Amino acid sequence: MFTYSFRARYSDCDPQGVVFNANYLTYGDIAITELYRDAVGPYAEVMESQGIDLVVAEGNVRYLAPIAFDTVVTVAPVITHMGTTSIVTEVTISTPDGIAAVCTLRHVVVQFGSNQKTPIPDRLREQLEPYLGPSSSPA
Amino acid sequence: MFTYSFRARYSDCDPQGVVFNANYLTYGDIAITELYRDAVGPYAEVMESQGIDLVVAEGNVRYLAPIAFDTVVTVAPVITHMGTTSIVTEVTISTPDGIAAVCTLRHVVVQFGSNQKTPIPDRLREQLEPYLGPSSSPA
Amino acid sequence: MFTYSFRARYSDCDPQGVVFNANYLTYGDIAITELYRDAVGPYAEVMESQGIDLVVAEGNVRYLAPIAFDTVVTVAPVITHMGTTSIVTEVTISTPDGIAAVCTLRHVVVQFGSNQKTPIPDRLREQLEPYLGPSSSPA
Amino acid sequence: MFTYSFRARYSDCDPQGVVFNANYLTYGDIAITELYRDAVGPYAEVMESQGIDLVVAEGNVRYLAPIAFDTVVTVAPVITHMGTTSIVTEVTISTPDGIAAVCTLRHVVVQFGSNQKTPIPDRLREQLEPYLGPSSSPA
Repeated sequence: MFTYSFRARYSDCDPQGVVFNANYLTYGDIAITELYRDAVGPYAEVMESQGIDLVVAEGNVRYLAPIAFDTVVTVAPVITHMGTTSIVTEVTISTPDGIAAVCTLRHVVVQFGSNQKTPIPDRLREQLEPYLGPSSSPA
Repeated sequence: MFTYSFRARYSDCDPQGVVFNANYLTYGDIAITELYRDAVGPYAEVMESQGIDLVVAEGNVRYLAPIAFDTVVTVAPVITHMGTTSIVTEVTISTPDGIAAVCTLRHVVVQFGSNQKTPIPDRLREQLEPYLGPSSSPA
Repeated sequence: MFTYSFRARYSDCDPQGVVFNANYLTYGDIAITELYRDAVGPYAEVMESQGIDLVVAEGNVRYLAPIAFDTVVTVAPVITHMGTTSIVTEVTISTPDGIAAVCTLRHVVVQFGSNQKTPIPDRLREQLEPYLGPSSSPA
Repeated sequence: MFTYSFRARYSDCDPQGVVFNANYLTYGDIAITELYRDAVGPYAEVMESQGIDLVVAEGNVRYLAPIAFDTVVTVAPVITHMGTTSIVTEVTISTPDGIAAVCTLRHVVVQFGSNQKTPIPDRLREQLEPYLGPSSSPA
């Protein structure tokens, strides 16, 4: 299972002393960038070379535990669904204390430079297949 | 219906030239701060005076249209559910072009300074009642 | 003297409970956007119609007092220098309690879509002249 | 010389496609957190155990080159001055293409939990001494 770790920045945190809720989506975004790097290469090159871009259609975060400043955060993205034009990725966000959140992002594939939906290119579909897995959460 | 408007900051936007997806949750947070101001008063005072705090348990955003830099954003928060210890708020995020997103936030009420769940105080429940309304979105 | 006011967002603040130091530069950026709106029009249109863009060459913030969440922040930008290709803007950042910081930004004018320095267009120079003023701070 | 590297996040970038100017101060903050970790230990523990905190009094950034999304950023902090109660740190921010910016931060030492200036504790002064160095920039 692919994972990536980084430290929670001071600027990620709010007056409650923990990572601000919106930044969990940012952590999901980091996870997906790193999944694509692992699968194909640098995100911007992947998209440009395949003539596509990804647009977020839905984002969801279930918050299970706060994350303090300076904590090592580990994100574990799993692709739970590939449709014709959409990709659902579930990112488990953990700290050394356990799972802090589960973030689910649904992206739609569009033509590069437009907002026109387009099917996932076959090459990308193959490159992403090793990252497919079941959702960890009950529907 | 309570609404609040502000401009999308340049720093809210990403290389696609539009508001970054995580910042829609920030916009939801702004909406809730302003709803509480309208209903009771400044958020920090409301919470401290009633001995409680709100912790986000779940956040969801359905993205319908991009929001460009400098756009006047209008947030319209409606409380769609008040349970014993939880409050669900649905925030419609609009621009002059129409609805850009629907953001749903579920908060849990905790004792001020701890993470211990506590019932919504009666006074706060009454103060929030005028903001109750149906969800705009199909389940 | 031109001023613009807005509220400090919860997400602007850090675990010390006050606006994070980097966000004072964001507040300076907001001030400049609003100065251009007041002087000419929406920033993006101003730049595109005159075939230029502004790039930040230097930023400085002197922090005088913390800014708490939810405070009404007033930014007062004054252009303290217009050279051939550069513009220095000093932004006084205040709260109801007094001056919180002085932020100085030096921008360089470049051709739109490139990083090539270009003289300030005559029309823009005239439009900005009413916003010229002395620096409030000792050199 | 101490250095620390990380990737520029997508959310760090603005519609010009490069890291937003305010985030260079965030990068300076990351550099200082990592310098303290290297010198003493986790920032929050260092400050609490020595009964102090650091407050930013002045921040400066000279921008030399843009930083694109996904670039590996290397920050190299050097303490260029330790006074009785203040510490000046100069952070060189580089990419594989060279120096992108020089960020200078002046912190004031205050008593933990107050804004009262206090001398740098002797132990901390010793721990920071190995990180002292000359400024890379002309006065």
